[in-house]
Amino acid sequence: MWGMPWTRGFIAVDWGTTNRRAYRIDRQGECTASFEDGQGMLSVAPGGFPAAAEAIRERLGDEPLLLAGMVGSTRGWVEAPYVPCPAGLDELAAHLVWVEAGQVAIVPGMSILGAGQADVMRGEEIQMVGALAAGLIPSDAFVCHPGTHNKWVTVADNRIRTFRTVMTGEMFNQISERGTLAEMIGEKVTLGEAFRDGVARGLDGAALTAELFSVRARVLLGDLRRADAASFTSGLLIGADIKVGLGMARGAEMILLGRPELTRLYAAGAAVAGHVAREIDGETAFLAGALALARTLP
Amino acid sequence: MWGMPWTRGFIAVDWGTTNRRAYRIDRQGECTASFEDGQGMLSVAPGGFPAAAEAIRERLGDEPLLLAGMVGSTRGWVEAPYVPCPAGLDELAAHLVWVEAGQVAIVPGMSILGAGQADVMRGEEIQMVGALAAGLIPSDAFVCHPGTHNKWVTVADNRIRTFRTVMTGEMFNQISERGTLAEMIGEKVTLGEAFRDGVARGLDGAALTAELFSVRARVLLGDLRRADAASFTSGLLIGADIKVGLGMARGAEMILLGRPELTRLYAAGAAVAGHVAREIDGETAFLAGALALARTLP
Repeated sequence: MWGMPWTRGFIAVDWGTTNRRAYRIDRQGECTASFEDGQGMLSVAPGGFPAAAEAIRERLGDEPLLLAGMVGSTRGWVEAPYVPCPAGLDELAAHLVWVEAGQVAIVPGMSILGAGQADVMRGEEIQMVGALAAGLIPSDAFVCHPGTHNKWVTVADNRIRTFRTVMTGEMFNQISERGTLAEMIGEKVTLGEAFRDGVARGLDGAALTAELFSVRARVLLGDLRRADAASFTSGLLIGADIKVGLGMARGAEMILLGRPELTRLYAAGAAVAGHVAREIDGETAFLAGALALARTLP
Repeated sequence: MWGMPWTRGFIAVDWGTTNRRAYRIDRQGECTASFEDGQGMLSVAPGGFPAAAEAIRERLGDEPLLLAGMVGSTRGWVEAPYVPCPAGLDELAAHLVWVEAGQVAIVPGMSILGAGQADVMRGEEIQMVGALAAGLIPSDAFVCHPGTHNKWVTVADNRIRTFRTVMTGEMFNQISERGTLAEMIGEKVTLGEAFRDGVARGLDGAALTAELFSVRARVLLGDLRRADAASFTSGLLIGADIKVGLGMARGAEMILLGRPELTRLYAAGAAVAGHVAREIDGETAFLAGALALARTLP
């Protein structure tokens, strides 16, 4: 239809807020080259996206581009409006936004609104449909997708039924960088006793604005080692996060999809809550999702 | 004893992290002059406190100084270690830290540690004992002290029995200034429907890291007016805060002690929770506390 058989090869880009990862995918569906850089959405000047895309092709070859992530937000290249849930591969494919016919497509995000819920995702949806298409997760599943904005996702019949965002990563970054706790949260997070204590506290469900201050108080009063403050705080936020997830799908198998350095934190947190979680690499799922979308193209 | 009868007059300083307020108090216990400036603890260079104190005397007169607030923290002039609760006027007076004998005293903060609790206050304690000494609050009371770090305080027999800090103000400031919500939270907070909706949501007790993201989602999906995002978010944080307080002393009269622009927010929030709260001006309480402490001096 577009005069360009994507099955001959294309470039998939996970184009986020602060960085991007680009992959050349060949006719066999294999990734043959890739790179990552700091040219995220925020670093592209107004009107600069065509040149930024061209720079990707210069590095990876003159192939069509499939772009996912914040590049499709209102502050990105071209807005790809949210597809309402329930939605899966077919809905994403049907709502690709073509920047250049047959050559450059942007994957839409997904949204949920109603019955007291309001949520949006952008960038995670391609990993979700990829994990489903590749059989990495079952057609009915409960998935945690850690990141700056963690997503808890319930999947029914191969489609995302509902989801809930918890801004754990952003909150941890903010309080690490500025404010009352910043001077105490310099250490690397380790998955020891302090982390597990924090998770347990977070699972209790007390207000985070109170619990976070008590981290400071405990350090000042000698009840928590300063070197443990970062791990305890990370655990606290992840525990509160997991409590949100368990409220959505208690008893289901918990699948952790994302960057291994994040899924391992949630796996350790899930263990405190008495859950065994299965970790799946987000990059693998992204590539599977890009390929599954490309194969829907005529 | 010190050769300086404070009852002839002194200067009381509420010396916080980012600003300070200084008051000259005469022999009748009346405030006859005052000023406020941005010379908070953080703006005083190491070793600079003697000069910063001298500058106060140059403006208000060569009187002894009673200093309260972060000036007594580990990053302040001289550390005034926390007095453990239960504690009241007598304990504060007994643990004043004298920077210069008879001339410059720093009021200690208060702490609580044990039974799963860890908390500290520094600067609020003088207002609490002042409100008690002046009869502004009863000898058994439940007090909310809004600020960057709101304190919920239970008072028994004229002494602070226990308290809990909720960093509502700091959290609101942080998310207003940076991160995902910042671009939406530019408007002034008004006490209308959006604020009350936020309070109700906060009182529900869901994880703030999830609720905060849904503010963004609701704006993006047209479910919340962008102009209402600040009011809703303020309500959300204050609702979660009030839930912490109500967990400490459900049913008691709620007294709001602090700056009027903050106590009115909590009064509006308390109304959503079905509580009538009584507001008391924090500056009046500070002056009463300073006077009560000065009168304990020999």
